[in-house]
Amino acid sequence: MSVTYCVGLLLDAGMVLLSDTRTNAGLDNIAVYRKTFVFEEPGEKVVVLLSAGSLSVTQTTIARLEEAISDSQDATVETILNVPTMLQTAELVGRTLSDVASDISEKMSRAQQMASASFIVAGQRRGGGMRMFLVYPEGNYIEATRDTPFLQIGEHKYGKPILDRVVTPETSILDAKKAVLLSMDSTLRSNLSVGMPLDMTVIEKDALRVTEQRRIEADDAGFQEMSRAWSQALRDAFTGIEI
Amino acid sequence: MSVTYCVGLLLDAGMVLLSDTRTNAGLDNIAVYRKTFVFEEPGEKVVVLLSAGSLSVTQTTIARLEEAISDSQDATVETILNVPTMLQTAELVGRTLSDVASDISEKMSRAQQMASASFIVAGQRRGGGMRMFLVYPEGNYIEATRDTPFLQIGEHKYGKPILDRVVTPETSILDAKKAVLLSMDSTLRSNLSVGMPLDMTVIEKDALRVTEQRRIEADDAGFQEMSRAWSQALRDAFTGIEI
Repeated sequence: MSVTYCVGLLLDAGMVLLSDTRTNAGLDNIAVYRKTFVFEEPGEKVVVLLSAGSLSVTQTTIARLEEAISDSQDATVETILNVPTMLQTAELVGRTLSDVASDISEKMSRAQQMASASFIVAGQRRGGGMRMFLVYPEGNYIEATRDTPFLQIGEHKYGKPILDRVVTPETSILDAKKAVLLSMDSTLRSNLSVGMPLDMTVIEKDALRVTEQRRIEADDAGFQEMSRAWSQALRDAFTGIEI
Repeated sequence: MSVTYCVGLLLDAGMVLLSDTRTNAGLDNIAVYRKTFVFEEPGEKVVVLLSAGSLSVTQTTIARLEEAISDSQDATVETILNVPTMLQTAELVGRTLSDVASDISEKMSRAQQMASASFIVAGQRRGGGMRMFLVYPEGNYIEATRDTPFLQIGEHKYGKPILDRVVTPETSILDAKKAVLLSMDSTLRSNLSVGMPLDMTVIEKDALRVTEQRRIEADDAGFQEMSRAWSQALRDAFTGIEI
């Protein structure tokens, strides 16, 4: 079993990304794996990937993308860092993901299981705008827009109502951090296999680098207090509603 | 496509049930079907069924359960009204559902499709307590308890966070009505194929009959106002949270 929740917001002021980390949550096998991956040449380009799904697929996909960068002295090999646009970055991630998924699924076919995964790809290159994509298991993708300024992968439903209500392109970075943390908080409460710690990443507009990266541990006092205050605020709001 | 959301709360003061109605929501085929079914002999017994899933399965299951009641002069035929306990009611619904689902799935097997459905079964018989069950497509079931005083079928995730936070066995009937309506409101906002009108049913403890049944239409002023007030209250609560 492998349950994840990752969310990315594309705002006028920048991009805010949050992932959980727990991947295997059995009674006797709880392991923490990172699901946020940063590729950057500060001042030139920044790309952040969030992953959900089968760990063997996401790790192999990331490993191939990283190996292409470290091995390639050959400029004809496409890498996340040398393709010229964010659209081509999303396509490269999609091709790599789809290749890895079919390699692994072939090995698993006797067990009648499918290995699949999906990614959020967010970034900006010098001369281009900020863009954010959701790459599906088959390698196709959709893009965040002003009408739909957030993308989610994994266990996304519990945390969607709060985003639907408070997130617009004009949302500030501070409010966006609050929104993704509260969205994650609802998910953590409703699905025990999505787990702390959390990785939060902020890319401010035109910074062309990660401007904030923070790991929030299970005992983080600020997150605990926010979670408690949000529960209380929801109960108070509930009490105030007339039927 | 067939998406539903039904929820039932089992409280010390009674049971509160809510279902949507829209079953087929294609661009050119929107039809309204009831998903709440009442069986009662006031003062003796009351049973309410909520259904989710394939319409052919749910309709056929309900039809067989109703036919058994109207046809049977034979006391050896088990019906919802003549079995002695709520547990046996849940088992009867489960057996009927599982028979219908396998009949229909056999017919559909050439199309490689599975027809399935699930039910919430809630009720009370004279001399017994209130009980509420979730009957799965295979006919097995789980029961609401004091630890988990609500059951959901269909598109259940969007509306679960609010229930997790505000519903306990001590919740009043009035607050329970508010809770299921707000839970539905979050679902309606996040999944366009769950639709108005809504059917709300209340069975107060030991009344042994439906004590309130109400259809809430799309233009219901009270529901619209509650929905608007809840959105505003959530945004206010969000603004008040410190990060």
